[in-house]
Amino acid sequence: MYRVDLNCDLGESFGAYQMGNDEEILAFISSANIACGYHAGDPSTMRKTVHMALEKGVAIGAHPGLPDLIGFGRRTMDISPREAHDMVLYQIGALYAFVKAQGGVLHHVKPHGALYNMAAQSESLAEAIAEAVYSLDSELILYGLSGSRLLKAAEKLGLRSAHEVFADRTYQSDGSLTSRRQPNAVLTDTDAAVSQVIRMVKEGRVTSQQGTDVRIQADTVCIHGDGAHALSFARHIRSQLENEQIRVETVGHQA
Amino acid sequence: MYRVDLNCDLGESFGAYQMGNDEEILAFISSANIACGYHAGDPSTMRKTVHMALEKGVAIGAHPGLPDLIGFGRRTMDISPREAHDMVLYQIGALYAFVKAQGGVLHHVKPHGALYNMAAQSESLAEAIAEAVYSLDSELILYGLSGSRLLKAAEKLGLRSAHEVFADRTYQSDGSLTSRRQPNAVLTDTDAAVSQVIRMVKEGRVTSQQGTDVRIQADTVCIHGDGAHALSFARHIRSQLENEQIRVETVGHQA
Amino acid sequence: MYRVDLNCDLGESFGAYQMGNDEEILAFISSANIACGYHAGDPSTMRKTVHMALEKGVAIGAHPGLPDLIGFGRRTMDISPREAHDMVLYQIGALYAFVKAQGGVLHHVKPHGALYNMAAQSESLAEAIAEAVYSLDSELILYGLSGSRLLKAAEKLGLRSAHEVFADRTYQSDGSLTSRRQPNAVLTDTDAAVSQVIRMVKEGRVTSQQGTDVRIQADTVCIHGDGAHALSFARHIRSQLENEQIRVETVGHQA
Amino acid sequence: MYRVDLNCDLGESFGAYQMGNDEEILAFISSANIACGYHAGDPSTMRKTVHMALEKGVAIGAHPGLPDLIGFGRRTMDISPREAHDMVLYQIGALYAFVKAQGGVLHHVKPHGALYNMAAQSESLAEAIAEAVYSLDSELILYGLSGSRLLKAAEKLGLRSAHEVFADRTYQSDGSLTSRRQPNAVLTDTDAAVSQVIRMVKEGRVTSQQGTDVRIQADTVCIHGDGAHALSFARHIRSQLENEQIRVETVGHQA
Repeated sequence: MYRVDLNCDLGESFGAYQMGNDEEILAFISSANIACGYHAGDPSTMRKTVHMALEKGVAIGAHPGLPDLIGFGRRTMDISPREAHDMVLYQIGALYAFVKAQGGVLHHVKPHGALYNMAAQSESLAEAIAEAVYSLDSELILYGLSGSRLLKAAEKLGLRSAHEVFADRTYQSDGSLTSRRQPNAVLTDTDAAVSQVIRMVKEGRVTSQQGTDVRIQADTVCIHGDGAHALSFARHIRSQLENEQIRVETVGHQA
Repeated sequence: MYRVDLNCDLGESFGAYQMGNDEEILAFISSANIACGYHAGDPSTMRKTVHMALEKGVAIGAHPGLPDLIGFGRRTMDISPREAHDMVLYQIGALYAFVKAQGGVLHHVKPHGALYNMAAQSESLAEAIAEAVYSLDSELILYGLSGSRLLKAAEKLGLRSAHEVFADRTYQSDGSLTSRRQPNAVLTDTDAAVSQVIRMVKEGRVTSQQGTDVRIQADTVCIHGDGAHALSFARHIRSQLENEQIRVETVGHQA
Repeated sequence: MYRVDLNCDLGESFGAYQMGNDEEILAFISSANIACGYHAGDPSTMRKTVHMALEKGVAIGAHPGLPDLIGFGRRTMDISPREAHDMVLYQIGALYAFVKAQGGVLHHVKPHGALYNMAAQSESLAEAIAEAVYSLDSELILYGLSGSRLLKAAEKLGLRSAHEVFADRTYQSDGSLTSRRQPNAVLTDTDAAVSQVIRMVKEGRVTSQQGTDVRIQADTVCIHGDGAHALSFARHIRSQLENEQIRVETVGHQA
Repeated sequence: MYRVDLNCDLGESFGAYQMGNDEEILAFISSANIACGYHAGDPSTMRKTVHMALEKGVAIGAHPGLPDLIGFGRRTMDISPREAHDMVLYQIGALYAFVKAQGGVLHHVKPHGALYNMAAQSESLAEAIAEAVYSLDSELILYGLSGSRLLKAAEKLGLRSAHEVFADRTYQSDGSLTSRRQPNAVLTDTDAAVSQVIRMVKEGRVTSQQGTDVRIQADTVCIHGDGAHALSFARHIRSQLENEQIRVETVGHQA
């Protein structure tokens, strides 16, 4: 039996601003990454999103980001490892409180946006973030780009990690994602996206833009929660995975 | 043997902005209320302040405030009980993470500034805040204005509370603080301030501005951490209390 | 010939967060109140909204609010007149820059949300805001609640004012709006709302919730820009006004 | 007669947080760069600082920065030219309002911190910022690193520029500043710092760290406003310049 986790970024509303289809998407995923008030989210949104995830039995993760609400945490900032450590610890503590208050358990941490990309490439940022997570709770699972420095840093500390792949992004022959500045960075064909995921899960391989086969570990697949087709794609990939005898299951629950 | 706690607001620096004499004042107090990033404080300041308090063996409390950095959390805002609950839970969770990561234990929560005053008077805000504290950890102690609604809400929930008095503020015949808009709101004479505290601790009474004796419970005394005379006053009141056989001791450690 | 202005709050998007139907609603209104980055809006949204308003020939106003993005400027804050003055001057200066840079002219200022309500009732806040507007440009027109202290303060300074009425709100016998905490605060019937506006414009009267006739000055009518029916209501009220020989025209352009 | 401008960053306090010795330093400088609320400063601080500068007859400039209060605008952010344009226009508009309201004239614009460095090196950011300044008022003077892309962009647009040099920084043989990550980046010897400035003004040359003579244009010298020795250094350099027959005079007033 194959298994894979489906994760989605949730809780991205802020005050009067609504974003995403959180309630609906929860029916299809096994892990929710909840924004923590820096790049998106606010305390009341965090409480409500934790509540919905607990009701649906979806594993809850903190989704810390850069202090850049106006840029939605997508703009690289030249922060020090110490600053990265502290802002991650702050945010996961805040989300932890909402989970604990509602009787749940915080399951994982996945950095957001530019912080995710920075942590994939910089060893010192990766180590700082992994240490922040470990210092709050050594049972947490760190989600990051498959094969990235962030996950190496987690493993070095003895922290569990989940290798994340993307259904709708293409890959390079070295296993990295094709930059969004390149053409063909995004797979727009739904069937091709689903097929890519199925092969990554079953064979541990993906076909690169250079035509070569690349080894890749696919513990969890990132699904988008907003946009016109988010819900229909989520429904579709879930049913296709199940047709292929791939069980959709939260990372770490396989034991 | 009499006992009383001396508490002070710490960790109020923000980024490049320095405030207070945190390291020095820690020598004289038994409880530190650490700002959580809303009205003051930032993640790195929180980490450093927690570290200093642990080194000095001073009990650590969260000091949540209103989301008003520019007004230092001193301007009343018309927030709902639900919003108060959520912003308090967010902030105490964030501070909890820094304490847990450094091997400490979060000891208490004291609302800051306008939130402190609002929670002293509004039953619904008081209950919302007490519930937030209780939901994170029912062992926490809630610090609030002596005799206030906030402490009544704590007691109703079964949460421990600490009745706070002020050395340098005068009192009304109903036990409330003289408003800062009134003359004589502040005791500027150091000896009078110390004498007032000693009487509150030993006799449970304070002389009001109306000349009457008022019953008051003094579990903890608020000391200021910035200003020209903060350190010398802290040193002075501590030694005077000890001269009077009043042990300075964190609330809840008397058992 | 009767005349009235139709105004709407625009430019309320923020970063990745979209709000309102700005482009479509501009076809129906004569004045746009553009958010200035405190309660809503950001620099890029301000630039784009100014551009759209200039293209459609709609008069541009600044729409300053409280520094409360998470509460969308709707929560009363206990700010001083000095603080109100300074935050209004800051925000209208920022919007002025976008208007000037695109070759336009800043036409009016309308405070937002809680600041609007506070300025309607407090003489000192009203005067502080009117002075801020006057000090930037004495030709600006101050929009405020019809009959409010804000407009009295404007008139006292020699600043032009526009008395604002609401299509979908009911009125009390003293000319004030029925509080939203009361039942019947909102007129949900479209025809009743339009009729109320027509009578306010033509007769200068409105029927209060107490059944009495109240005198009211209607220079400008507030239209909502978001919500499911905003566009259809805007189209409807505009055509009904024109059917009644009421010209929809920016305040101050009648000369 | 030689002339040079002495400029200093002012108005960097924020709410309850005090920074700098603004009132004292104004006695020694000819241009003030006033923070605009993004990296530092708030509306009330802006008003007060403009007032002090007008009283002392010091030319007023806007000092826009990145939206990073916690990092004091010193952390590079990956913003687009369009975003740079918009955030600069927003901030200089806000400061313009305070200057206009008090009867003054906005004289110049100098980007702050990381934005200053980014604009020195990136042609597209430089052009975006120069266009923002020009679009508000084509009479403004753009201050930037001597010889930088920012000043080239200003000149290309027909905007006046001021080449800024640093008393206490060392230079490389290509005319750039020695990176702060290198040893010897900072001149700690006061006499050496003053001598460097005098030679830059009189001869248009500076001795690089490589020992070579480099041509440099010195229209304005940056003086620091905070730190223990800021005031004494300001007094000293001003008197030494006057001893050398160098008149301290605002840029653009020489006509």
